[in-house]
Amino acid sequence: MHGSPIKHCRQCGSAVEQRIPDDGDTKPRAVCPACHTIHYINPLNVVGTIPVWGDKVLLCKRNIEPRKGKWTLPAGFMELGETTAEGAARETVEEAGAQFEMHALFSLINVARVGQVHLFYRATLLSPEFAPGTETQEAVLFDEADIPWDEIAFRTVKETLEQFFADRRAGHFGFHTLDI
Amino acid sequence: MHGSPIKHCRQCGSAVEQRIPDDGDTKPRAVCPACHTIHYINPLNVVGTIPVWGDKVLLCKRNIEPRKGKWTLPAGFMELGETTAEGAARETVEEAGAQFEMHALFSLINVARVGQVHLFYRATLLSPEFAPGTETQEAVLFDEADIPWDEIAFRTVKETLEQFFADRRAGHFGFHTLDI
Repeated sequence: MHGSPIKHCRQCGSAVEQRIPDDGDTKPRAVCPACHTIHYINPLNVVGTIPVWGDKVLLCKRNIEPRKGKWTLPAGFMELGETTAEGAARETVEEAGAQFEMHALFSLINVARVGQVHLFYRATLLSPEFAPGTETQEAVLFDEADIPWDEIAFRTVKETLEQFFADRRAGHFGFHTLDI
Repeated sequence: MHGSPIKHCRQCGSAVEQRIPDDGDTKPRAVCPACHTIHYINPLNVVGTIPVWGDKVLLCKRNIEPRKGKWTLPAGFMELGETTAEGAARETVEEAGAQFEMHALFSLINVARVGQVHLFYRATLLSPEFAPGTETQEAVLFDEADIPWDEIAFRTVKETLEQFFADRRAGHFGFHTLDI
């Protein structure tokens, strides 16, 4: 990340200074010279599901940038007031209009370069009918052999799908962490 | 969380409006009427370790609010540019001045009420010598029988310690998720 996205103080609107605060901190922050508010920028969690119907996995064709037209598991930014699993379920409803049962956390992937942590939960679809929202062009069930590997939107989705199929072949679903 | 901590636009300093953006969003956000920047507030990750020396676990007596004087596992807010494990290791250095080897992720606990996700990694201390930073009054190794259960600073620490000792008795360390 180059530069700070914070130019003005959220409390009073004054232009901020980029400096190390006087409270023992070691990193530069956006500090307000008027009201002394210190602004932190923290990593974001992206939460989603691996929705399964029989042998098939549900993928969504993105209708928004980035990676419009590419395929993804339903996922999005975790919101305030929800758990990681609740966020993953919400995104699955929003992006695929799917009905499903949630299972265990399957993958936690750090993408430190962009300040994100991606978490995917396994889920079992209760119906093969979908009602995708405006962020999705179409929601389609894929057999493993038909997954469009070269058209997957995000590397965390590709890694999660690969590990999911490997675990399924092995007959046991584990929990997997990865840094990319 | 009552009200928004965002009063002014980080881009231009104008007073923001609290409303649902026009981009298909469903939740009120701080929206700038001048430059149209939308401000999101997202959950924060707290990352830490369970540092072990033989049968003993390292706890830190907090020297800062909240819960000054109470005992905690070394932990703190994940920073931009680091992985969850790197953040947990950094906090362990900052708060305990410990030398250690990192192991697997042990617990992921949602605290949705305060918009946080707490993650604890197992770690093995390489020495029983510590050099606690300014945020810690003292760093002490405890046997399970001596853990000050009524003086633990945070419920996520208490839950993680209880599960850690249960797993150790069972002879196998798993990965645990919990919502509190």
